[in-house]
Amino acid sequence: MTKKTKEQTFLTMEDLHVGQKFTAGPEAVTEDAIIEFAQKYDPQDFHTDPVKAKNSAFGELVASGWHTAALSMRMIVAAVPQMKGGMIGRSAEKINWPRPVRPGDQLSLEVEILELRISDNKPERGIMRTKNTTFNQDGKPVMTMETIVFVPRKTG
Amino acid sequence: MTKKTKEQTFLTMEDLHVGQKFTAGPEAVTEDAIIEFAQKYDPQDFHTDPVKAKNSAFGELVASGWHTAALSMRMIVAAVPQMKGGMIGRSAEKINWPRPVRPGDQLSLEVEILELRISDNKPERGIMRTKNTTFNQDGKPVMTMETIVFVPRKTG
Repeated sequence: MTKKTKEQTFLTMEDLHVGQKFTAGPEAVTEDAIIEFAQKYDPQDFHTDPVKAKNSAFGELVASGWHTAALSMRMIVAAVPQMKGGMIGRSAEKINWPRPVRPGDQLSLEVEILELRISDNKPERGIMRTKNTTFNQDGKPVMTMETIVFVPRKTG
Repeated sequence: MTKKTKEQTFLTMEDLHVGQKFTAGPEAVTEDAIIEFAQKYDPQDFHTDPVKAKNSAFGELVASGWHTAALSMRMIVAAVPQMKGGMIGRSAEKINWPRPVRPGDQLSLEVEILELRISDNKPERGIMRTKNTTFNQDGKPVMTMETIVFVPRKTG
């Protein structure tokens, strides 16, 4: 067998277009993971204590919205084909959590490209705005947001 | 000694005013924590691999923006006096990461109340918009965002 060099192909801005969609998931959410995340980052009873959560506005244990955001980022990385230099986020906008994420939920994600343009300051790179929707197993959105990330352009 | 019942006082909307500020921190960021978070939620080389990160746009290992967001939520919970029912986020807006968070950084947070109003749909509760700024040890912002959360109103 001859040794073959593995050449990785990376996406650039020129491979993308507005309206393009990428998906990922499912991502299982367990009670243990909800509690572990919340103890570290969002220590409130309705995220950390299944018993006290019963007396909360949610009536049960629910995931921190920032846990849902972190799991969504994991799915964004899985969904979008690899770009040279990775995905560097500039900003995120309009994050909404229309319904809670519960233990046992199976999340999935859809990324849709809303806008693609060349950077004004650095014309060697592009800027991509996407709408990211995180769904539960019933197909209902549990988080929506827009992110603006830098994307490489074809060079040479 | 007589046994004293510990009575917890909770804040309501009536205790708050626009312009009010709350602070928390410092929160240390270690290389191990950056890598652990990123392996789970944002597995890209510049967040997970100190060696490969040298060839990235950052030139070094940096924290995932969602890690900074999670640490900021931890500080928000610490900063804002406890409200009955906790802080339930409706949405977050205008998240920006103006500079990276690096191993060894010490983060702190300032919450400023921008707006307070009674909910149109549910007049028994209030809605609070805050600007949250996360600073590094040099006093430079590493993340800014606005959050909209529900706050209880005084009743009875």
